[in-house]
Amino acid sequence: MSHPKKFLTIKPEIRVLGVDDGKFFLHAQGTVIVVGVVFRGGYSIDGVMHTNILIDGLDATEKFASMINTSPHHRQLRLVMLNGITFGGFNIVDINRLYAATGLPVLSLTHEKPDLEAVHKALKNLPNSEERWKLIVKAGEIYEIINNGATVYLTLAGISLADAQIIIRLTSTRGCLPEPLRVAHLIASGISP
Amino acid sequence: MSHPKKFLTIKPEIRVLGVDDGKFFLHAQGTVIVVGVVFRGGYSIDGVMHTNILIDGLDATEKFASMINTSPHHRQLRLVMLNGITFGGFNIVDINRLYAATGLPVLSLTHEKPDLEAVHKALKNLPNSEERWKLIVKAGEIYEIINNGATVYLTLAGISLADAQIIIRLTSTRGCLPEPLRVAHLIASGISP
Repeated sequence: MSHPKKFLTIKPEIRVLGVDDGKFFLHAQGTVIVVGVVFRGGYSIDGVMHTNILIDGLDATEKFASMINTSPHHRQLRLVMLNGITFGGFNIVDINRLYAATGLPVLSLTHEKPDLEAVHKALKNLPNSEERWKLIVKAGEIYEIINNGATVYLTLAGISLADAQIIIRLTSTRGCLPEPLRVAHLIASGISP
Repeated sequence: MSHPKKFLTIKPEIRVLGVDDGKFFLHAQGTVIVVGVVFRGGYSIDGVMHTNILIDGLDATEKFASMINTSPHHRQLRLVMLNGITFGGFNIVDINRLYAATGLPVLSLTHEKPDLEAVHKALKNLPNSEERWKLIVKAGEIYEIINNGATVYLTLAGISLADAQIIIRLTSTRGCLPEPLRVAHLIASGISP
């Protein structure tokens, strides 16, 4: 577990990157688009970036890091929010390594309770299943919090639970999902085939 | 020129679709993505849609109409805002035909002054240049207005200048461009190669 970065102040206009993946057809091969949206607090969009990752591949962490590090928004960003830690099927993000590679704390959030047993079973049908499972275990503790009346589930790298909750609350202006994640989802789905 | 639709009321949360195209390499062939963003007034994103049009093709009007008419947001929409009328190079939208096909008034807005003479000249290098030029002429009068301190240029189909100005002012919460167009541009560029 990475040492949490301490936020000295959390400004209402804090720049947060929300990341989600596009849709793809079941049993598809190849790549899927991943979209990152730069939000200023919970209100305004400052930019959009993208990368492509292999469906069921092992390159998500590296591709996300490179998308973020090469973006002109990198220096303004204070936090990365991921919609869960599995993208493009079972291409799993190592949130601690993403934190180390970008210098930005990482928070993954889902509103469905992660079913680790089902994931462990499903992984067995894929190559490198043990490596993938280790990334899931390595993501660390899953926290359950109530956000705008709904339960959401978090894993954290480089940020304390207290700071994560402040930023989630601040950016959740339109429901139980923070705007960076709600809008990343709308864009990634809206541009998918 | 189509008969302008009269807006009985213009609500602060009026649903407006902003449309812009992605980037492509000069002299590229094939298609380019066009993104539509559903905005609720000037603040919040309700959805994202997309289509693909031929670079320098003649299918923009038809593809835009089909993207809008098949969207689950169609019935909530009150206005379509286009970033100019040429997309994917010189694939020109017939704004009056788009209005007729979707039932939604269409407003095109640019912050660069349209240089019709240069366009007429450039068109001569393309097939169907007369047909394309007719679409530009058919778009009708170009209005010049000041929005948040900057000059912008409009063409209109199915909406009066007075109503257009009210909606432009209402949705321009972050500068001289209405949010639906500013964000459509960020998304379309951000997901381009």
